[in-house]
Amino acid sequence: MTDPDTLNDTRAASSQDAVLPGISDPRDLLHAGAHRLATRFAGHFAEETIERYLFESYAALKRTARVTHHLPVLAETFAADRLTALAQSQGTIATGVPEVLLVCVHNAGRSQMAAALLDHHGRGRVHVRSAGSQPAAELDPAVVTAMEEVGLDLSREYPKPLTDDVVRAADVVITMGCGDACPIYPGKTYLDWALDDPAGRPVEEVRLIRDAIENRVLAVLAELAPAT
Amino acid sequence: MTDPDTLNDTRAASSQDAVLPGISDPRDLLHAGAHRLATRFAGHFAEETIERYLFESYAALKRTARVTHHLPVLAETFAADRLTALAQSQGTIATGVPEVLLVCVHNAGRSQMAAALLDHHGRGRVHVRSAGSQPAAELDPAVVTAMEEVGLDLSREYPKPLTDDVVRAADVVITMGCGDACPIYPGKTYLDWALDDPAGRPVEEVRLIRDAIENRVLAVLAELAPAT
Repeated sequence: MTDPDTLNDTRAASSQDAVLPGISDPRDLLHAGAHRLATRFAGHFAEETIERYLFESYAALKRTARVTHHLPVLAETFAADRLTALAQSQGTIATGVPEVLLVCVHNAGRSQMAAALLDHHGRGRVHVRSAGSQPAAELDPAVVTAMEEVGLDLSREYPKPLTDDVVRAADVVITMGCGDACPIYPGKTYLDWALDDPAGRPVEEVRLIRDAIENRVLAVLAELAPAT
Repeated sequence: MTDPDTLNDTRAASSQDAVLPGISDPRDLLHAGAHRLATRFAGHFAEETIERYLFESYAALKRTARVTHHLPVLAETFAADRLTALAQSQGTIATGVPEVLLVCVHNAGRSQMAAALLDHHGRGRVHVRSAGSQPAAELDPAVVTAMEEVGLDLSREYPKPLTDDVVRAADVVITMGCGDACPIYPGKTYLDWALDDPAGRPVEEVRLIRDAIENRVLAVLAELAPAT
């Protein structure tokens, strides 16, 4: 054990006014983002709510995300989707199609593949979100590869924690391996899929999981929003 | 692989109007809690903000907590502390003493021990919170035992995720093994402590970690809020 760090040591190493050399204050970027979101969601939510959503979305992603220097931008995307979900649940924004939420543990493999496949095959007949109970630092690379092979680009997706707003907005919640991590509210359909976890598996095995997910996705689509 | 579950199967197994037999709708408990919090924080926050805080706190704990049947009550405690932190950061509630935030990965060992020891030795001269970047399902039992041995009761503590509000409220943020998971805002003092992780260790080893934390806690207290 080294001697305990003292506050004076730390004060000497980091200024009280600057964050770190060369790194700007994230609050500036987040306040600018909150202003954009306030314009976009004017009439839906108080500015207090919007600013809280953006800052909490930033903190939530910072807890687990590996790459953090684009995080204020990613947090704005995440907060915008969460605010949209909240407005859907309150009936002030309507997509007009069934809302499906896919939840796994890490939001890095199963729920990401299911969301992309459901969105692809649904062709606008469903709206899809995904989340994780313990989000990973990034998507599993073998998952991104296996999805590229079927023409679906996951390179801009990111693991994100399950939040109340996206559950509220959902008509159908599909869980995969995350136990009872999802709030249970009445008036929704809950499904649980038993699927192998692609985490750390070679792409040959991930392809099999991808295809198993696709079969289930097609079956759910046939029930929920059959093609006319 | 079994055949894909169909929506009809699930509808047959769970009613659209009830949640599960014998389990009440958590929204009833949460709405009642939001009403209590709205009274307590009247003049500080809009009811919209308070209700969102409580429901998101519930969803956040449900993601990872093992015991979930008291979760609406725990969520109310968590939301109340977060709203207090937010009011502190906005200057509408003042504790009058330095605010210290302790962050580790699981909020199940190191940060919990540090928080309890700092609160104990501080005797009201500091206010203390703790959080985790990836909260565990429950506190480490050996940690609870090792703290009982020095007369500190952690049986009512629970792992909770790091949120923006508690960072905002902090004057000093002390991280332990959680990398750069914590938002960096100017005007705060950030310390990082290198400590062994007590997760899964026998109580004999946890005692050593506890005592190492106590030394650091006493050093920080001597700097931050020396006894008069």
